Amino acid sequence: MPSKTVISLLSDFGLRDPYVAEMKAVILSIYPEARIVDISHDIEKYNVRMGAFLLAQAAPYFPRGTVHVAVVDPGVGTKRRPIIIEAERSLYVGPDNGVLMLSAQNEGIKHIHEITNKKYMLRPVSRTFHGRDLFSPAAAYLAKGASASSFGPEIRDPVIPSFAYPMVQGEEIRGEVIHADGFGNLITNITKKQLKAVGIEEGDSLQAVLKGTSVNMKICSAYGDVPAKTPLAIMGGTGFLEFSVNQGDAAQSFKTRIGDNIIIKARR
Amino acid sequence: MPSKTVISLLSDFGLRDPYVAEMKAVILSIYPEARIVDISHDIEKYNVRMGAFLLAQAAPYFPRGTVHVAVVDPGVGTKRRPIIIEAERSLYVGPDNGVLMLSAQNEGIKHIHEITNKKYMLRPVSRTFHGRDLFSPAAAYLAKGASASSFGPEIRDPVIPSFAYPMVQGEEIRGEVIHADGFGNLITNITKKQLKAVGIEEGDSLQAVLKGTSVNMKICSAYGDVPAKTPLAIMGGTGFLEFSVNQGDAAQSFKTRIGDNIIIKARR
Amino acid sequence: MPSKTVISLLSDFGLRDPYVAEMKAVILSIYPEARIVDISHDIEKYNVRMGAFLLAQAAPYFPRGTVHVAVVDPGVGTKRRPIIIEAERSLYVGPDNGVLMLSAQNEGIKHIHEITNKKYMLRPVSRTFHGRDLFSPAAAYLAKGASASSFGPEIRDPVIPSFAYPMVQGEEIRGEVIHADGFGNLITNITKKQLKAVGIEEGDSLQAVLKGTSVNMKICSAYGDVPAKTPLAIMGGTGFLEFSVNQGDAAQSFKTRIGDNIIIKARR
Repeated sequence: MPSKTVISLLSDFGLRDPYVAEMKAVILSIYPEARIVDISHDIEKYNVRMGAFLLAQAAPYFPRGTVHVAVVDPGVGTKRRPIIIEAERSLYVGPDNGVLMLSAQNEGIKHIHEITNKKYMLRPVSRTFHGRDLFSPAAAYLAKGASASSFGPEIRDPVIPSFAYPMVQGEEIRGEVIHADGFGNLITNITKKQLKAVGIEEGDSLQAVLKGTSVNMKICSAYGDVPAKTPLAIMGGTGFLEFSVNQGDAAQSFKTRIGDNIIIKARR
Repeated sequence: MPSKTVISLLSDFGLRDPYVAEMKAVILSIYPEARIVDISHDIEKYNVRMGAFLLAQAAPYFPRGTVHVAVVDPGVGTKRRPIIIEAERSLYVGPDNGVLMLSAQNEGIKHIHEITNKKYMLRPVSRTFHGRDLFSPAAAYLAKGASASSFGPEIRDPVIPSFAYPMVQGEEIRGEVIHADGFGNLITNITKKQLKAVGIEEGDSLQAVLKGTSVNMKICSAYGDVPAKTPLAIMGGTGFLEFSVNQGDAAQSFKTRIGDNIIIKARR
Repeated sequence: MPSKTVISLLSDFGLRDPYVAEMKAVILSIYPEARIVDISHDIEKYNVRMGAFLLAQAAPYFPRGTVHVAVVDPGVGTKRRPIIIEAERSLYVGPDNGVLMLSAQNEGIKHIHEITNKKYMLRPVSRTFHGRDLFSPAAAYLAKGASASSFGPEIRDPVIPSFAYPMVQGEEIRGEVIHADGFGNLITNITKKQLKAVGIEEGDSLQAVLKGTSVNMKICSAYGDVPAKTPLAIMGGTGFLEFSVNQGDAAQSFKTRIGDNIIIKARR
């Protein structure tokens, strides 16, 4: 592990309360050289899936060796296990509820260890705030050079998140809206690979059925490829198919919310 | 003072305006090695008491020697004094209006100095933004090694905040809701010590009278100890008695707001 | 360029989405020593002018040699040029749409270069997120010591923003409200110089016509110079004339919004 490791933080704690600061304070107490980067603390409360997607979106841009801490943790204080995932490029620390898995699977998982070694915890460990008492110290000690295996036994049965994967049926893709960003861009769970399977490539037009309404759009490569206030499809920075309105708000225009179904067909 | 001192910032400035960035810019201009951590900038405007509580909540997790800057400052530009408090573990910088005192008293206060030495100020000092012109430079120079006494004369009459302390009367504790966090957890000013005085310990049931309604709850040690959407009492990470609803929002369920009175009795 | 350069970030991305984190991750991958400071990420979407003003407000407090990255970029992916401005104290990186110019002009501009050198870009460059793929790497390489001229050809026709400047007509100044901060302070585009031109100095009273209503106010030097809830004028930390209500919200009291016209006259 190189010195000055980056530690990223993601949670549903918000920034009004001092919880995120307490995590940073604990990290800096153990590992003063940490360079801490917030991914987001405005994950919808208890929305493990949104946390998992935003983590998977941001992680590839971080330096090799980064320790990612993600705390969206409705089961804190119950029997869900605290874990460390050693993946190809990064280390992941958080609850064993799926929040870490999407990003770790994208990289390739090497080992998963449960955190049981009390030496690496803030004592006493509260049962309400493992972000501070358990995950932050673990991240700091990992960044400092402790091996994942020193935290506890290897486990082979992590919780696999039941994230919706899109289904390709004949000439149709049935997917889902998984996120609406601050610009109103709608991010789906549909990838380039699935589009290709039904014969759609960048530059093509497609037909999207959203909330029972059919909309025709071109897959553009920039928002400015269509006039202002016009809808378009785009392969976003996320690797997923997005729907946008140039200088507008697609979530509002399409009256669409996270979790809504979407059907994609080629237009020929 | 060790090198690479941590400087924490707390204010009611919000993060949309560039005020917090100006404070950080000033600090880094004077002390480039500073590791700056935001505690919260979403303190309710002018709410000195909320600032004092959140600072007291977060400060114990910071490394020894941290310089805490807290700017909730309705009296900026008037005669209220700018001060530095040298406490057992940390240094505190801010206005003499009580915002620093709760946390400093928890540690134990060694000395308090007024900031009068113009050498340590950004010139000219505006009368509207001491956070930038006076408190940030003071924090940076302290972190760099200046002694508190070099900033100005010692004072012995700091403003003592009139924070409500709970009253124990026979078998009742009369306290107050002092904060509602982003999860809707209600934090009271009641501590373990006062609960013990009326014979209540962790694991016991208690009766809480909130807004004229009586609710029976158990003091749990984790949210998951009760079914989803069920109310519970808990000794929070803050050291204060909290009321929560597992995976729910207690503030909403109990229609309770900051400042509301609360009566606690044992249930036998 | 000294080591440990400060890089500031300003955008309209918000902090809920991982976009700002991706920019920081890219910067730290290239230049691990960067000290990154957020100016604001809550610029109103696509509001180039608000971005320009907040950048100009904060920049003077940063250390000499700071690299400022500002991404309010409605034209991303179109033909608008990505640029680097070498100014007297700082370097500026962002789109050539005016967002950088106000602050750079205040310092004095030395050279402007278009960014065309693909060596300094994250490959492939998306057409939707130049903040991450183009501006962040440019800032990191500049901070690391690359010269502005190595990024591409010098340009002499930058987009000059058509920001409203106030007009002095006889004994009147006709200006505009350019920002309302989190405290409800109304910041105008009127400077000390223009006030002087109509014979108004600090301590004088003035008459402000806002939304057809005339209000008399004194130019105070601190909010506390008038009783609580009383309106006042003040030369803010920004160098611009502001209207405030002591411990109140001027934006609400005056029912005034960004872009509203304002007429100032001396009161004699």
